[in-house]
Amino acid sequence: MTPYKELSKEQLQAMKADLEKQFEEVKAKGLNLDMSRGKPSKQQLELAMDMLEELKSTDKLKCETGIDCRNYGLLDGIPEARRLLGEMTEVSPENIVIFGNSSLNVMFDTVSRSMTHGVCGSTPWCKLDKVKFLCPVPGYDRHFRITEYFGIEMINVPMTPTGPDMDMVEELVSTDPAVKGIWCVPKYSNPQGITYSPETVKRFANLKPAAEDFRIFWDNAYCIHHLYDDKQDFLVEILDQCEKAGNPDLVYKFVSTSKVSFPGSGIAAVAASERNLNDFRKHMSVQTIGHDKINQLRHVRFFGGIVGMHKHMKKHAEILRPKFEIVEDTLEKELSGAEIGTWQNPRGGYFISFDAMEGCAKAIVAKAAEAGVKMTDAGATYPYGIDPKDSNIRIAPSFPTVDELKLATEIFVLSVKLVSIDKILSEK
Amino acid sequence: MTPYKELSKEQLQAMKADLEKQFEEVKAKGLNLDMSRGKPSKQQLELAMDMLEELKSTDKLKCETGIDCRNYGLLDGIPEARRLLGEMTEVSPENIVIFGNSSLNVMFDTVSRSMTHGVCGSTPWCKLDKVKFLCPVPGYDRHFRITEYFGIEMINVPMTPTGPDMDMVEELVSTDPAVKGIWCVPKYSNPQGITYSPETVKRFANLKPAAEDFRIFWDNAYCIHHLYDDKQDFLVEILDQCEKAGNPDLVYKFVSTSKVSFPGSGIAAVAASERNLNDFRKHMSVQTIGHDKINQLRHVRFFGGIVGMHKHMKKHAEILRPKFEIVEDTLEKELSGAEIGTWQNPRGGYFISFDAMEGCAKAIVAKAAEAGVKMTDAGATYPYGIDPKDSNIRIAPSFPTVDELKLATEIFVLSVKLVSIDKILSEK
Repeated sequence: MTPYKELSKEQLQAMKADLEKQFEEVKAKGLNLDMSRGKPSKQQLELAMDMLEELKSTDKLKCETGIDCRNYGLLDGIPEARRLLGEMTEVSPENIVIFGNSSLNVMFDTVSRSMTHGVCGSTPWCKLDKVKFLCPVPGYDRHFRITEYFGIEMINVPMTPTGPDMDMVEELVSTDPAVKGIWCVPKYSNPQGITYSPETVKRFANLKPAAEDFRIFWDNAYCIHHLYDDKQDFLVEILDQCEKAGNPDLVYKFVSTSKVSFPGSGIAAVAASERNLNDFRKHMSVQTIGHDKINQLRHVRFFGGIVGMHKHMKKHAEILRPKFEIVEDTLEKELSGAEIGTWQNPRGGYFISFDAMEGCAKAIVAKAAEAGVKMTDAGATYPYGIDPKDSNIRIAPSFPTVDELKLATEIFVLSVKLVSIDKILSEK
Repeated sequence: MTPYKELSKEQLQAMKADLEKQFEEVKAKGLNLDMSRGKPSKQQLELAMDMLEELKSTDKLKCETGIDCRNYGLLDGIPEARRLLGEMTEVSPENIVIFGNSSLNVMFDTVSRSMTHGVCGSTPWCKLDKVKFLCPVPGYDRHFRITEYFGIEMINVPMTPTGPDMDMVEELVSTDPAVKGIWCVPKYSNPQGITYSPETVKRFANLKPAAEDFRIFWDNAYCIHHLYDDKQDFLVEILDQCEKAGNPDLVYKFVSTSKVSFPGSGIAAVAASERNLNDFRKHMSVQTIGHDKINQLRHVRFFGGIVGMHKHMKKHAEILRPKFEIVEDTLEKELSGAEIGTWQNPRGGYFISFDAMEGCAKAIVAKAAEAGVKMTDAGATYPYGIDPKDSNIRIAPSFPTVDELKLATEIFVLSVKLVSIDKILSEK
């Protein structure tokens, strides 16, 4: 395909007229498709239905220590759930505390706790003039909303194919004591699907923060969420690396089964050093009498262990993979060589990240919405919703059916082409 | 019975020798009984087992708006759960937001939010020199631990048979802008089982706080937890009263099914004005994508509605009532007229509050522990764990079996007698 920029004004105008006709045709279908969030499809939800089998026998409701999971007790979670989520995130059960249904909630509470009570005895962040977080971009909008909500200044750190720009991270973390944290989705990152390289993980574990209360917020959301059997990323386990580097308290790992069992009805956990976990426990023992242990049991009974969990994730992959391929194939077929956008083909996770020509993302998302396709808001992958280049668009292929997705991708591609042609024409 | 104080030294010493013999006999049994927490018994847990029936049919997993409860969405909770918990706490579904498994967690988060973000736009409490809460005493230890954790100064307000001393409450709330809240368990209060009178509720609704961000934390924990069919307390609904008084935003009501369905696997809710709920939502929409809607569905399916819930609570009462009566009858039989303690016979809730002679509570609890009976720590019913008179002891009769409870109460009464005799002897 000839790069669009090399086409003449006349060629572009003719092309535009044709694309507009196609666009009006799909628009007339009056569609209403949602590609905005990483929401599992109905087909995926069906996979875990056996988890909802009856638990009506009293014996089934005791955990392995003999404690009745229907009653109060066991603040850390039942041992078998700590083991299962430990296996999921590759740490010992002793380094795991189980929480409620949402790891986002735990991250929020962790920032909130640091604001009011500091970190392991440090000055509460709310007493400081300035608190900063590093935000690898593009990244997860809900992370950025938490730090924004607490008035924490966010600093963009560019992502590279091996993870965040570590020169910049090391520089900022080691020199500025106001830098208290960094948001990371280290495996199959949201939205780019990048997995941090072993070198990157080691550099993280060896950070020498200027602030004693600096922590890495390691949101291992997609740790077992592969799309392929034969093409898998792997991530070096960071807690172990931190320990080896003499920085055992440097990282909080967050994990959940929201996209393994049921969004909203899963279980979440934190993996961290004993000292950090005690900090969590101090807060948690005032905050609640305990989380939902019956739901913890459901998870353990259904998955059995990590092998069962991996088998289950393969079923998810069977459903998700064709969807990713539809988007990737369409982008390849329609846009390759046109030089009006770049994208990644991830090996796992929930998203495809698309970078349009500068200044085009908002217009593309608006254009697609005109034809009934809802994308994530342009800018959402950046702190404060501001993408300096107005370029990044997050595509979430999981929720629509295959047929819907074909149509939605077609509309997306038409929108990219039309907006890009306008941009090129305006500069000719 | 002759008051112990009127007995001669010799009579008391003879009595003491006899009681000590009895005490050694029960102690030799090597018991391990827990009367420390308001924990439902196994028999009560069995009542809600049908809630854990399988939900494996996909159709069963849609709420009445047709939304799939397995997936993300509906931050406020499913409509039928809002209706059910609205009925439970006597407000419209519009005034209800459903949360996770713990109302304590919601109260904690509410205080935490006020610390970091203020109340409906007020100055964050963490920016203020001093924040104070009123604490009706004796009260619920976990309430006090929340305010203590956030460094909020707690002021004791004595309970009366009609609720907190309202003269004192009105005086403090209307004159001191540092007073930001009051902890209330308005029905079958923890630990005394007192229900606030209509007059008290109206005085609460008509408070004229010096602080615009003052709120009543109305923990309606035992709203439907009656012990008797024919002797029930009723509580005037406060949200309505606040509205009538022109103070619609004055109160947060908290409610949960922890002692209706399963402790730890229930659902919690807040009832409040639209303005207050929007304040909750602003926080919540950053904190989580949503709470466990499948569990909300379980509750709705199991109870059907408020009538089903009331029927269910009668079954709880059948189990709890005989336990309360064992304690009450034993106290009556063994201590009436001895003037070494007073207590209440509540009509609902989870506790019997016992007031020993001044300076005796800690010693009594220690004595009972010697014989294997664990009571709530003396002092726990007061802020900072300090009962100025060292007098109040909370008895939780729910968890032990009837036979265990008989023995435990016997040990408790022996402990009361022995410690009281020592005290009287030391003053003779």
